[in-house]
Amino acid sequence: MRIIGIDPGTGILGFGIIEADKNGKCTLIDAGIIRTPVKEAETVRLQTIFEELKDIITQSKPAEMAIEKLFFAQNITTAMSVAQARGVAIVAGAQAGLKVAEYTPLQIKQALTGYGRAEKKQMQEMVRIMLGLKKVPQPDDCADALAAAITHASVVWGKIRP
Amino acid sequence: MRIIGIDPGTGILGFGIIEADKNGKCTLIDAGIIRTPVKEAETVRLQTIFEELKDIITQSKPAEMAIEKLFFAQNITTAMSVAQARGVAIVAGAQAGLKVAEYTPLQIKQALTGYGRAEKKQMQEMVRIMLGLKKVPQPDDCADALAAAITHASVVWGKIRP
Repeated sequence: MRIIGIDPGTGILGFGIIEADKNGKCTLIDAGIIRTPVKEAETVRLQTIFEELKDIITQSKPAEMAIEKLFFAQNITTAMSVAQARGVAIVAGAQAGLKVAEYTPLQIKQALTGYGRAEKKQMQEMVRIMLGLKKVPQPDDCADALAAAITHASVVWGKIRP
Repeated sequence: MRIIGIDPGTGILGFGIIEADKNGKCTLIDAGIIRTPVKEAETVRLQTIFEELKDIITQSKPAEMAIEKLFFAQNITTAMSVAQARGVAIVAGAQAGLKVAEYTPLQIKQALTGYGRAEKKQMQEMVRIMLGLKKVPQPDDCADALAAAITHASVVWGKIRP
């Protein structure tokens, strides 16, 4: 099953596409970011995210989407900017016929490391190992998006392995 | 010019459609809400909002959209729920070819009452007067959406009048 993971954001939205077979083996297909310029109107930026994400989905043909559920509360401006992009990403996926699954940060950490309080570095290292890569995907937004996709694979197949 | 105003929210999204002529005279075309059930998955709710709003736009054919810019910080969960729906509404409008304008609560209050700290009741009363209605449109979400639309009319034509 091909899965696209999303790390939402208006400035930078990370995406990561994996192929997960029924043995839970995950392979990297593609990963990257959609970046929108701060100087543009927010309405234009959200539209850009929608269009670019639709193109990525059309080209890479994932069957399902995994996206992080938001719970942070440090900075309301950032939170709302992320939430807007998240709404747009969910609709881009649903419009393309993808089933969209949401995971809390806790679920993602547990799926990858077995430990709900794992640190960011540990998470990224597990993404690297699971996908059999030499280096952690960069920028962080890609690694976070791939972590969501791998979590979905672990839920769908009941297991994951490198 | 036909304008659709939006009061975003995942549970209830208000919309209000007006016709504003070049003299700033505003006429009510339609107003209502899109309600999505709490028991449904958030991903499904956002998709419903997108589809229903697209249908409303197709039927009522507005040329431009006006939507409130978010600034509140009382409850982060509510803020993020509103922000997600806001992103979805902006993309629904932009996808339909509408120009989308954003207004701060301050701008909306000033446009309708000339006073940036106007209270909710005053705002609703001004919506009623400007549209020549007997009663304030209900629920509040409709009145708020219409207030955004009227604000846009005042910016486009440089004036508004009942």
